[in-house]
Amino acid sequence: MNFIILFYHIEFIPFHHSYIMEFSRVIEKSRILTDLPELIPFSYDATRHRCIPSAVLRPVTKKEVVEILKIASKKRIPVVPRGAGTSLTGASVPVKGGIVIDLTLLSSIKWMDFESRCLAVEPGVVYDELNKELAKEGFYFPSEPGSGKVCTIGGMVATNATGIRGVKYGPIRDYVLSLEVILPNGEVLRVGSPSRTSSSGYALKDVFIGSEGTLGIFTEILLRVVPRPEFYATALVSFSSMEDACRDLASLMKEGIRLSVAEVLDSLTLETISMYTKLRFPKVKALLLLETDGWEEREVDKELRKALKICSNAIKVERSKYREKLWEARKAAFPSLAKYTPSLLTEDVAVPVSKLAELVKKIEEISASYKIRVATFGHAGEGILHPTFLLDEKNLKIARSAAAKLIDEAIKLGGTITGEHGIGIEKRDFMGMEHGRSLRYMKMLKNIFDPSGIMNPGKVC
Amino acid sequence: MNFIILFYHIEFIPFHHSYIMEFSRVIEKSRILTDLPELIPFSYDATRHRCIPSAVLRPVTKKEVVEILKIASKKRIPVVPRGAGTSLTGASVPVKGGIVIDLTLLSSIKWMDFESRCLAVEPGVVYDELNKELAKEGFYFPSEPGSGKVCTIGGMVATNATGIRGVKYGPIRDYVLSLEVILPNGEVLRVGSPSRTSSSGYALKDVFIGSEGTLGIFTEILLRVVPRPEFYATALVSFSSMEDACRDLASLMKEGIRLSVAEVLDSLTLETISMYTKLRFPKVKALLLLETDGWEEREVDKELRKALKICSNAIKVERSKYREKLWEARKAAFPSLAKYTPSLLTEDVAVPVSKLAELVKKIEEISASYKIRVATFGHAGEGILHPTFLLDEKNLKIARSAAAKLIDEAIKLGGTITGEHGIGIEKRDFMGMEHGRSLRYMKMLKNIFDPSGIMNPGKVC
Repeated sequence: MNFIILFYHIEFIPFHHSYIMEFSRVIEKSRILTDLPELIPFSYDATRHRCIPSAVLRPVTKKEVVEILKIASKKRIPVVPRGAGTSLTGASVPVKGGIVIDLTLLSSIKWMDFESRCLAVEPGVVYDELNKELAKEGFYFPSEPGSGKVCTIGGMVATNATGIRGVKYGPIRDYVLSLEVILPNGEVLRVGSPSRTSSSGYALKDVFIGSEGTLGIFTEILLRVVPRPEFYATALVSFSSMEDACRDLASLMKEGIRLSVAEVLDSLTLETISMYTKLRFPKVKALLLLETDGWEEREVDKELRKALKICSNAIKVERSKYREKLWEARKAAFPSLAKYTPSLLTEDVAVPVSKLAELVKKIEEISASYKIRVATFGHAGEGILHPTFLLDEKNLKIARSAAAKLIDEAIKLGGTITGEHGIGIEKRDFMGMEHGRSLRYMKMLKNIFDPSGIMNPGKVC
Repeated sequence: MNFIILFYHIEFIPFHHSYIMEFSRVIEKSRILTDLPELIPFSYDATRHRCIPSAVLRPVTKKEVVEILKIASKKRIPVVPRGAGTSLTGASVPVKGGIVIDLTLLSSIKWMDFESRCLAVEPGVVYDELNKELAKEGFYFPSEPGSGKVCTIGGMVATNATGIRGVKYGPIRDYVLSLEVILPNGEVLRVGSPSRTSSSGYALKDVFIGSEGTLGIFTEILLRVVPRPEFYATALVSFSSMEDACRDLASLMKEGIRLSVAEVLDSLTLETISMYTKLRFPKVKALLLLETDGWEEREVDKELRKALKICSNAIKVERSKYREKLWEARKAAFPSLAKYTPSLLTEDVAVPVSKLAELVKKIEEISASYKIRVATFGHAGEGILHPTFLLDEKNLKIARSAAAKLIDEAIKLGGTITGEHGIGIEKRDFMGMEHGRSLRYMKMLKNIFDPSGIMNPGKVC
């Protein structure tokens, strides 16, 4: 990939020796990275933004996190908490320099209590790895982000992530019971409750969910899990337009069809995936990927057949026996597009499902009027689309204007500027558009937990 | 019921004429109540607490709510938002006098968009009424509080209510997409998003959910709904002890059984319900009420049969064909106990399900050592128990000590002081015990939205 570096880029400012000395009093020196080649992997995420931190600290205990934050607070050093760095918004890029706290070494599953359908993990546990453990016991942790093979639970909680099964299982917020959070001043808070539900006071837990590392650092996460389905039925439904696909999806929702996946992909996305994976998608204008899940093969199958009958706009309906390959291919949408084009600008708007057809029409209009190619795919059942602008060296500015227009249209349709990726630096300029007067209260909230503004500065609000 | 009035009771302080004049400029005079007999119905909730407000205002528009709050803010008049007044914590009792804002006239379903499985209601819509409308379209709004026949959606959101179907559907928090909130200064905020999920900034919406009217007043609530199950299978499982019942429930959870209801009731609760309703429960030490739901009769039935096989401690297993009567009887637990005894003190602790058996043992020990009768029932699948202390004129102080001991034990077991009823005035003294350092941040949060402290003063924190 040929990166276009823009907007955010600071020079590498090495720390004064005294800073390193101070940190090395609280964390083993081998886990303090300060050499440029070691720092580069921590300078980026899945966007084009690149900034090199002054140091990377890799704690292995809660106590180390506490002590690191105390020093950072005292010295007013910017702190960027980091999981796998899969963010699509620049959220894990250290745009103001300072330190990156790499949380991937805090990666143990602390306990699992299946009688309570609850478990505790450290933030660095990888999503797919957790599910491998759970599968052994017949349980499942929703809802499968595209980056599930590598992304961490901490990062998912920090962005209120969802994924391809969100239409049935919803976002991660619904599954987080409790968090241990280290505030920038080093204070340790326990928010939420290990019990399955609580009405005890203000929902601080929910304030930290989706806070993108701007309020504190998670050191323990308690999650609710659900029984793992045993059967799946999967189909590819082809359409001659994205609008048709979205209209049929709206009908499926209205008819109460119990889908566990409802993904939409346009022709450009399909072609690109076909180029870079072994899976050959049909050459059509739009595809809905539908799946039902459950514990009775007959029922799962019956529900899917019911769904397919409702798809009155479909031009072709095809049952798939290769669901695992299919979902792997679907998750390859973003990486395939990234290989295909010098660079990308991925959006993440969400609207009520009844408005999706209007939104895809707007996307096509924007693509035509700004003369920029857009590949659109997303978790349509949750109303989320990822219109991805294909960039070359020349059209980034145009793409930015086109994306702004798209966001404006999504908000007009009652939507949000980010369905699942979060704000980071990419969406920050649009916060006022979506939230209006509420933004002022978000800023006050930030100030409660991080009064000196060291936590992931330049992100969210 | 013979009320024991205690702890909170202020004299009726009529407003100065000028206050009434000022309110009558923004709300029709017929909807301002100031005569003592009219005020009495707004002086209480389902607890023993009684305090008479100076006036009750009954707005019918958002604009009226805004203008009322502006006046209250200017004059520093305490404001208590009120739905159906079914609170079990004193949350809707005007303990500092001032005005009660009765929101039951704001009771329209504004729109329903089934393509997006989303709808908008005013706060005064009654839970069961909403579900009647939804049933016509094949949808359902979870999760059935005991007071569902009368309680309002606004009150449910204000307490993060759950109910008998929480074990499958979770608390109301998971279903609230967006809120229109009027802050005490009259500012109108839109928090959350009409799209099914969003990762846009800090979760202000979730701060308002469960805030018990202490931060602002909801004037519109957007909710997610789910397809309505078509089949149910129901059973009564008898045990010779509450501990046995809770141990078997923990096994059901561990085995991944997909229950839609898992309620537990002890012998005293069962006897009392049998006295005041037409339903005769078996005369046993403990009963688990189990239900499965779904869309295939065979599967729903199969899952319940699987559940019953796992109940190895059961002394009797009985399938029920009269589920509606059964759930009506279950919901009559609290009202029956209220008829049976001069007064009640109802607790609402929740613990991880694996700890329920230990908790019921502690309850029995507390009952014995404090020499006070306790009737225990609750949404065991969610880990929620409502140990209810039976009061007479003499034992309130003992009951308070016993309840404090119970709360202490629940917290030691990793639990919460309130699973679903909220804090109100009843649980306020225990907030520090559960939340420790977090309580300070909750107070700062309150101060952001209600700096002059007029919103439901004396509640939550």
